[in-house]
Amino acid sequence: MRYLSSVLLAGLLAGGLTGLPTAQAQTAAAPAKTDSLTLRKIYDEALLRGQSYDNLRYLCEKIGGRLAGSPQAAQAVAWGKLTMEKAGCFDKVYLQECQVPHWVRGAKEKGEIIGNKGKRISAAVCALGGSVGTGGKLRAGVVEVKSLAELKALPDAAVKGKFVFFNRPFDDALIEPGAAYGGAGDQRRSGPAEAGRRGAVGALVRSLTSARDNNPHTGTTSYGDVSVKVPGAALSTLAADQLSQLLKADPGLQFELEMSCQTLPDVTSYNVIGEVRGSKYPDQFITVGGHLDSWDLAQGAHDDGTGVVQSIEAVRLLRAAGLRPERTVRTVLFMNEENGTRGGNKYAEQAKQNNETHVAAIESDGGGFTPRGFNVESTPAVFKKVTAWGPLLAPYHANELTPGHSGTDIEPLVAAVHPTALFGYDCDSQRYFDIHHTAADTFDKVNRRELELGGASMASLIYLLSKYGL
Amino acid sequence: MRYLSSVLLAGLLAGGLTGLPTAQAQTAAAPAKTDSLTLRKIYDEALLRGQSYDNLRYLCEKIGGRLAGSPQAAQAVAWGKLTMEKAGCFDKVYLQECQVPHWVRGAKEKGEIIGNKGKRISAAVCALGGSVGTGGKLRAGVVEVKSLAELKALPDAAVKGKFVFFNRPFDDALIEPGAAYGGAGDQRRSGPAEAGRRGAVGALVRSLTSARDNNPHTGTTSYGDVSVKVPGAALSTLAADQLSQLLKADPGLQFELEMSCQTLPDVTSYNVIGEVRGSKYPDQFITVGGHLDSWDLAQGAHDDGTGVVQSIEAVRLLRAAGLRPERTVRTVLFMNEENGTRGGNKYAEQAKQNNETHVAAIESDGGGFTPRGFNVESTPAVFKKVTAWGPLLAPYHANELTPGHSGTDIEPLVAAVHPTALFGYDCDSQRYFDIHHTAADTFDKVNRRELELGGASMASLIYLLSKYGL
Repeated sequence: MRYLSSVLLAGLLAGGLTGLPTAQAQTAAAPAKTDSLTLRKIYDEALLRGQSYDNLRYLCEKIGGRLAGSPQAAQAVAWGKLTMEKAGCFDKVYLQECQVPHWVRGAKEKGEIIGNKGKRISAAVCALGGSVGTGGKLRAGVVEVKSLAELKALPDAAVKGKFVFFNRPFDDALIEPGAAYGGAGDQRRSGPAEAGRRGAVGALVRSLTSARDNNPHTGTTSYGDVSVKVPGAALSTLAADQLSQLLKADPGLQFELEMSCQTLPDVTSYNVIGEVRGSKYPDQFITVGGHLDSWDLAQGAHDDGTGVVQSIEAVRLLRAAGLRPERTVRTVLFMNEENGTRGGNKYAEQAKQNNETHVAAIESDGGGFTPRGFNVESTPAVFKKVTAWGPLLAPYHANELTPGHSGTDIEPLVAAVHPTALFGYDCDSQRYFDIHHTAADTFDKVNRRELELGGASMASLIYLLSKYGL
Repeated sequence: MRYLSSVLLAGLLAGGLTGLPTAQAQTAAAPAKTDSLTLRKIYDEALLRGQSYDNLRYLCEKIGGRLAGSPQAAQAVAWGKLTMEKAGCFDKVYLQECQVPHWVRGAKEKGEIIGNKGKRISAAVCALGGSVGTGGKLRAGVVEVKSLAELKALPDAAVKGKFVFFNRPFDDALIEPGAAYGGAGDQRRSGPAEAGRRGAVGALVRSLTSARDNNPHTGTTSYGDVSVKVPGAALSTLAADQLSQLLKADPGLQFELEMSCQTLPDVTSYNVIGEVRGSKYPDQFITVGGHLDSWDLAQGAHDDGTGVVQSIEAVRLLRAAGLRPERTVRTVLFMNEENGTRGGNKYAEQAKQNNETHVAAIESDGGGFTPRGFNVESTPAVFKKVTAWGPLLAPYHANELTPGHSGTDIEPLVAAVHPTALFGYDCDSQRYFDIHHTAADTFDKVNRRELELGGASMASLIYLLSKYGL
């Protein structure tokens, strides 16, 4: 997942989601007591016969990393369609075409710190997604900064011809690692662009994590409108600490970087969509989704294989519990969340074109850990309605309903079709950024019960949304 | 950890903890707003400079499995004393002698399923703690039951000379894995005794877990007053499933078990205790602890290395945040929780002998995962007071205060000195029983932030108890 910048999110919340209608409910009512029995059925099915875990195993271990535009992403599309068809719970399953960027990493990157006596120390690096390559070996001095502002304040001579080393760590005191990620993320997103603008030859960015290890964390960097694009690489936190320490003793040291990544022409790809027609209000839509693409370095287990299998499973659970939703439910496996949101944009564009009414959308893109509840983007009045469902979710520890970021893929719906509320599946996230965007985001990091509980929590919310509207 | 049987717990709760005085508070008051700043200081220290993780690494990787009576348990005692002294936060650190049982596993156990054509299939087994050995190879037929009641209903001829195979799985529909453990645990605790009573030659017990793998889970079995003790072994869940399936096709198959475990004479061991004298009410005690012993198969990371290091850290955090508790706080590293509770009994006995006043005791023995809050054993009136502290813990997601089991080591205090309340640190437990009492309970399963957050939650509760009493 990517996170909304905290500034943008604060704006959205302060404005009460300008542009959203207050309600479009036709059957708003307090949940009946039988609802608690229905939720229990959903969780029983998930815990006793859940399919998320086995689906995820296949996606991770047989397909693996699946960056948009890659052959693995194409395999994932075929797998997603087949898996939804085999689930037997959708009225129709179809693909929604979109053009996606096609960035390739090339050969494994190399990084070395070179001391003033020529001593070379290997440093764990990887290219940031979207970065240009180095065109062979790129060697230069290093200037360390803790922020974009600090770079701005430096004289040209201190930057020109050097690598800018962005080394602001996570604020570990923050209880939510997502907030720490938000606080450090501008270095990765804008660091290379700003370094290039100032005449640097490249940017080295401390990995966005609290973990101290040798896994570099990739993730998108964006050049915006800069005229000179310089390469941007992530350093593992241990490599960053070492580089920083060595720089103190030897400010004249050099860094050598070699990356052969490049951006190829756009490729045709697809969102994969499964739909169950609502029994009472077929023209009111509820979307549930995760993103099918992942970074290339690992298996994309927690980011976002878990969201993908949960979004399929959520609908299967409803049907297995004997329910047919009253509103139309769409599972959407979004393509290209990681480096473009082209799938999310396409889905919103199409919804607008079809003049669809969207009640709500739910995204699971924060990992497949033990449920806490949902983040909610809505007006205060709608939020109040949603919180009335808390007690139904309390037996499952999924009742933390908090104003907050929903999901990157569903947010384009806001401007396009004004859904009444957006939801982000919220789970325990202490471990998430240890492996996020690294080679360690693998299937074995996912716990079966935690994953299945998440799918059941999402199914429960869909059930309530489908029955009561908003 | 072991869990109280749900029957016993229900009795305790229904009776409102008979025997406990309602309150002994001298300064009961609503928490001040400055308390929230104090808690923030405690969490800052834990997240930025916490020592639990490094302490745990040493205990797990340098000492490892440390069953009571073993040389490793003696090493752990010395380590515990040294670690508390080095923490620099206790007024005194001392050992409290107790006699502990000394059961040894002997050579790695062997189990084989033998079909009627002599085909042998290896089955992953381990001896249950306290079991007698097999005295060489023990081969016999197998009768499968799902419960002690089912065994009772069988005719003698169906049991005599056979292994009784207890194969009731966890009830996976239960949201709390601890409840599933409680529901299946009688097979392990009493299965071998009851099998022997009925003339069986041994007992094979399905591992107490939801996980499907080849790790057998050990744990104590108790013979009570039976005259003939027969060996009891845990089968991995995969081995249990296979044995059950093969039995259906071939009820005449045999099982061969070889275990050389035995019980040696009792050994002298110790609780390790660190004490900070209360500044205002030095004669009122608050105990915080975990158990220093672990099963021998693994490193005892989540069971209960995490509780041990958190209990030391909780006091260090208070002092590092500039606080001196108003009541006396004792960190107790209990010996022999797993197979005897001799340390817990000794601590309670000594407290009674000294006529000590105990306000509260906290135990962390449910793993070192992300905090949820605390289980509370108290009268309803005291519970109400405790829940008033919930909002202070809410920013840390540690505010679930629920009536429930506290901890095996602190429960002997109830009869001995009537503490006003007992607390069990409550954390996310979905993963706990996957590795509980197996070779997989290792340091790498513990997440630094999750562990340190737990220590901070415990320190926060101690701070509030120390300041306000109950």
